[in-house]
Amino acid sequence: MIESIPTRVTELFGIRYPVIQGGMIWVSGHKLAAAVSNAGGLGLIGAGSMKPELLRQHIRDCRSGTDMPFGVNLPLMREDVENLVDVILDEGVRIIFTSAGHPGKFTRRFQEAGCVVAHVVPALKFALKAGEAGCDAVVAEGFEAGGHDGVDEITTMCLVPEIVDALDIPVIAAGGIADGRGMVAAFALGAEGVQVGTRFAATPESSASGEYKRRVVEARGGDTVITLKRVTPVRMLKNPFALKALKAELSGASRDEQVALLGSKRERKGIFEGDWEEGMFEAGQGISIIREILPAAEVVRRLVDEYGKTLRSLPLPRKTNAANQE
Amino acid sequence: MIESIPTRVTELFGIRYPVIQGGMIWVSGHKLAAAVSNAGGLGLIGAGSMKPELLRQHIRDCRSGTDMPFGVNLPLMREDVENLVDVILDEGVRIIFTSAGHPGKFTRRFQEAGCVVAHVVPALKFALKAGEAGCDAVVAEGFEAGGHDGVDEITTMCLVPEIVDALDIPVIAAGGIADGRGMVAAFALGAEGVQVGTRFAATPESSASGEYKRRVVEARGGDTVITLKRVTPVRMLKNPFALKALKAELSGASRDEQVALLGSKRERKGIFEGDWEEGMFEAGQGISIIREILPAAEVVRRLVDEYGKTLRSLPLPRKTNAANQE
Repeated sequence: MIESIPTRVTELFGIRYPVIQGGMIWVSGHKLAAAVSNAGGLGLIGAGSMKPELLRQHIRDCRSGTDMPFGVNLPLMREDVENLVDVILDEGVRIIFTSAGHPGKFTRRFQEAGCVVAHVVPALKFALKAGEAGCDAVVAEGFEAGGHDGVDEITTMCLVPEIVDALDIPVIAAGGIADGRGMVAAFALGAEGVQVGTRFAATPESSASGEYKRRVVEARGGDTVITLKRVTPVRMLKNPFALKALKAELSGASRDEQVALLGSKRERKGIFEGDWEEGMFEAGQGISIIREILPAAEVVRRLVDEYGKTLRSLPLPRKTNAANQE
Repeated sequence: MIESIPTRVTELFGIRYPVIQGGMIWVSGHKLAAAVSNAGGLGLIGAGSMKPELLRQHIRDCRSGTDMPFGVNLPLMREDVENLVDVILDEGVRIIFTSAGHPGKFTRRFQEAGCVVAHVVPALKFALKAGEAGCDAVVAEGFEAGGHDGVDEITTMCLVPEIVDALDIPVIAAGGIADGRGMVAAFALGAEGVQVGTRFAATPESSASGEYKRRVVEARGGDTVITLKRVTPVRMLKNPFALKALKAELSGASRDEQVALLGSKRERKGIFEGDWEEGMFEAGQGISIIREILPAAEVVRRLVDEYGKTLRSLPLPRKTNAANQE
C-alpha cells in the first residue's frame, strides 16, 4: 500500500497524497470534503453555492467528520465575499483556495491569520499576479476543467509547464485529471499536486443529484462544451440547455442576450436538482474516462495506486553504455 | 547518451525514439523530414501543400538526405488524393500517416503494398473507425494542436487515455507536446509515441518563413485561437487575419461568409510567405513553451534527454512497508 507521495504540496497542506478535491458548487459540501481528507487527500468545501451561515455549518460539520486538514474554495467575485471571509476566519479554517477574482485583496489577510492560500488561474498572467500577491501555491486550471473557465482556452498540457517555468511556488494541475495516469502526466509537466473535480462529483458523498452523476458516468469525450462565453465561459454537459446556449452564441447572441438566456439558478437546477432539460450540468472533459460512481475514498485510493502503476509502466530509455542503463 | 526508447511505435516504424515530426503544410518538406529521421525520430513529408510531382521530388530528395525510415502525411480529403497515392506507392514510401478523411479507402491498398499506416483522429469515434479499417496505429490529436482540429475540442489529456482504453493498436499522442515533459505526460496517459508539430516548425530545416518562426518563438500560452469553425476549425496564431475571422465567427458569420473571408492561399501567405496581416499562421498551443529556434536534431536530442530527466524527477510513492519502497 502506498503510504504517501511526498511533494511540496503535501508538505504545504499537511496531507499524505498530493490529491486535492476541487471545490465545486452544489457538489462539495462537508461530506465530500471530509471523505477526501480522511482518505489522505485534501477536501475542499465549495463556498460558491453557500450563504455565509450555511458555509459556517459546513465547516463545523466537516470538522466533526474529519481530524485531517481540509479547506474552503472561495470565489472572490461574490458580492458578499467579505462575509464569507469572516466566517472562514471565525471558524479557524487554515487552507483557502481562492478563485475567480484578484488574489491581492485577501491573501495577506488570510496569511496573517495563519492560513495557507492557493489561487486558481487559467493563464500565465494571472499566475504571475498570484505570485506577486504572495500566494503559497497556484492551481493551473486548463481548458478541460468543468465549470467556469478562462477565456484563453489554454489546456492543462500547455498551461502547467508554462506556469511551472515562471514561478517558484508549487503548481497544482487541474483540468482533465480523473485517474492516476492523468496524475503522472500532470507531475511530468512539473505540477506537484493535482486538483480533481468531476471525478469526485460522481461519488456518493457528492451533493450532486443522482441524475447528474448518472449523466457524468454515461458521457464520453465529446459530450461537454464551453459556452456562455460573453457572460463567462462555462464547461458543461451538452444537455438541451447547453445546446440552446451554444446555438445562441454561434448566432452572435450579445452579452445581454446570454445573461437573459442563463437566467438564474441554472446550476442548482442542473447539478443539484437534476433537471436535464433546463439545468446546467457543469462537468469537465475528464468524463471521457469516468465510468462509474465510486466512493470518494476509493477514488483517492485508485488515483494513488494508478499513480504507482503508471510510474512503473513508463518506457525506460536505453543508454549507449549498457552499464548505465536506467 | 540515450540510445533508444523502445515502444511498439519505435518497433512499428523501425526508429530509435518514439518521436514523430508531424506532417505540416508549407513546413515539412524533405529537409525537415530527413533531419528528424537522421536524428532517430520519424520525419514526415507533409503532402498537404504539394502537387503530386512536387511530392515525388520531395520523396526523392528525402531519400537522398537520409538512410533512415521516413514517411508521408496524406490528407485524404484532397481532390487529387488518388494521384498522390500513386506517387507515394511508385516511390516506394513505406510509412503513411493519413488524416482528414475516412481511413477505410486507402489503408488496405497501402498495406498490401507493404506500408505501415497510421491515421490521425480527434475523437474516439474516428479512432474506432481507424481500428476497423485495420490501421497499424492512430495519432490521437488533441484540441491543442495547430492547424486543422476536430469539432469536439477534446484535449490531449482527455483524448489519449479514452482512445488507449478502447483500442489495442499503439496510440501516438499529438497536440501541445513540445518538450520532454510533455512526452512523459503523453506516455503516462498511455501513448507509445508522440507527434510533435509546432516545435519542429520553428527549426532552420522547416520551410516556414522567418517571420513565422519568429512569431512562434515570441508567442505565449494564450496567443493561438481556433476559428473558422463553420468551414473547418483551424488553430492559428492570433494575427490580424485570425482576429478578423474570430470576430466574424462570434457575430454569427455563416459558412459561406467564412469561406469568403478565408479566400485562398492563406496558409501559404502566412506560414510560407510570412504575411502577418493577411496570412494564416497555423500553430499549436505548444508555443507556450517554445522559446527559441533550434536545429531539428537538437529538438529530438532535447526531447529525448528531457524525457529521461523528467522520468527521474517524478515523485516516488512511499510504501507502508519500508522494505518495499519504490
